[in-house]
Amino acid sequence: MASENAVARADIEDAHERVRAHVRRTPLLETASPLPGAPPVSLKLELLQHSGSFKARGAFNNLLRRQAPAVGCATASGGNHGAAVAYAAQRLGVPAKIFVPSIAAPAKIAKIRAYGAGVHVEGNDYFDAQALCDAYVAATGALKIHPYDAVETIAGQGTVGLEWERDLARLELAALDTVLVAVGGGGLIAGIATWFGGRVKVVGVEPQDSRAMDAALRAGGPVEVPIGSIAADSLGARKIGELAYAICKSRVERVALVSDAQIVTAQRQLWRDHSLIAEPGGAAAFAALLCQAYVPRAGERVGVLICGSNANLATFAA
Amino acid sequence: MASENAVARADIEDAHERVRAHVRRTPLLETASPLPGAPPVSLKLELLQHSGSFKARGAFNNLLRRQAPAVGCATASGGNHGAAVAYAAQRLGVPAKIFVPSIAAPAKIAKIRAYGAGVHVEGNDYFDAQALCDAYVAATGALKIHPYDAVETIAGQGTVGLEWERDLARLELAALDTVLVAVGGGGLIAGIATWFGGRVKVVGVEPQDSRAMDAALRAGGPVEVPIGSIAADSLGARKIGELAYAICKSRVERVALVSDAQIVTAQRQLWRDHSLIAEPGGAAAFAALLCQAYVPRAGERVGVLICGSNANLATFAA
Repeated sequence: MASENAVARADIEDAHERVRAHVRRTPLLETASPLPGAPPVSLKLELLQHSGSFKARGAFNNLLRRQAPAVGCATASGGNHGAAVAYAAQRLGVPAKIFVPSIAAPAKIAKIRAYGAGVHVEGNDYFDAQALCDAYVAATGALKIHPYDAVETIAGQGTVGLEWERDLARLELAALDTVLVAVGGGGLIAGIATWFGGRVKVVGVEPQDSRAMDAALRAGGPVEVPIGSIAADSLGARKIGELAYAICKSRVERVALVSDAQIVTAQRQLWRDHSLIAEPGGAAAFAALLCQAYVPRAGERVGVLICGSNANLATFAA
Repeated sequence: MASENAVARADIEDAHERVRAHVRRTPLLETASPLPGAPPVSLKLELLQHSGSFKARGAFNNLLRRQAPAVGCATASGGNHGAAVAYAAQRLGVPAKIFVPSIAAPAKIAKIRAYGAGVHVEGNDYFDAQALCDAYVAATGALKIHPYDAVETIAGQGTVGLEWERDLARLELAALDTVLVAVGGGGLIAGIATWFGGRVKVVGVEPQDSRAMDAALRAGGPVEVPIGSIAADSLGARKIGELAYAICKSRVERVALVSDAQIVTAQRQLWRDHSLIAEPGGAAAFAALLCQAYVPRAGERVGVLICGSNANLATFAA
């Protein structure tokens, strides 16, 4: 049984020291709340991270902490984690093999190839790709890097929270009452919830049609859900991670659900008003605030994590 | 004769206090230098500013300092300044009329209209639009907001330098030796050079085919130049401003010239490696570093201003 204490704040501080020379300390942007009279919203621009998403943090933390054999590392991914592992492996000189399902965005597959990794495209969703990856790892002894349900991954993603809190203080900006974080397999929110440890309210955001964390919190444990959102290529886990669930069940206040139309509205507004290109999963947390799937109380200071940018520009423009 | 002391550091501090509630304090991003072994480069992400460029600063400083009559304000612009005046005027409840030449990017014209301003599209370049604007101001008494050659405009743009210097200190990051700043009419670089006042080396960047500042520095005064670059809709001034020249002649170290192909290379790399959409003029300063039109000496700490994002996404994607 996964322990809710499997990852500690100290693991995140260690991860921060380990990865800080390799990942970007992504900037914060204060912006007006969509609610009149509400305090400014703090956006953490994690979409500007290497490889286009927060996943670079967990990838580096794995590769720097664990020794890969000569055959290298392997992972399965809807795309962003694969791109991140490919990027980190290239920087560290480790061979990488990435298993992606056929729904992965072409922009992400192209990014993985550009970082020099081997790519195996097969299967309908992330879970199919994971099974193929597991078989490859069993046959070759490659180092498996789990996209969300491993201590190193969760501790690496938790460095987002560490930077956010420390940079607000350095910039003399108000601390957060609440953070909104998109949820796929749960590694990112588990890391952030571990970092904040109850000092900041952590709210998950999922697409209405890809609600693995919401279903787990309601059922009292991970359960399978159907997947159908436009954000499925980054948030489309059929089941939340065991470890992520154990960490989040007492630390995540609740999950706000957003429709695909709300995600598209958020993407458009992020481009129009902030000059940011977020992919659907990267815009989901902003959608929750913009479209009032999450409604702050009066005076509540909210942070929104913009976590990925790997959108197809041609689709976006149209 | 324009005085090199027409704008003082204190004017920029005043402008900062005046506009800070209205403009974004745009974030800084540390990134690896394209030169091996060189210190990190500080990017100031001014492309995330309201209306998509730094021009919002000067627009607010004008409208907050000078009283517009009931007929409102008017300006001529290749696009970004027009969008900024339209945005600021809308926020402050002032009517605005924007004169743009036919080369203005459709994305910018659409932005101006979306901010509720009247738009008059006529003329081949910015100077034609300025003549039409001047006639309108003479006939109506509207408040004219000069896009670059006015004290309020230059002081407003100078707040970029103030924020940059102060935020580096707050974030405990190394101060700059040099900043690279794209030059159109010269208002932005004049403000930044006034702020840094010799403490930081200021280098201008112009397209090879739109080199008004370079020509002025070589000729010992503003002279007309031909305009032909893909960045002409933001950097395409036929002649540098008198005031901007007077301020820059002793404060700007030199101008680095970049080709259109180098600008496109910089745009692509900013998207691929940084998830940023910069317009051609917004990417020019980065192009100078990337393509070695400006070559730092060993150990030189360089800042690059990414100053505008109003690109046409469909063109960008193709």
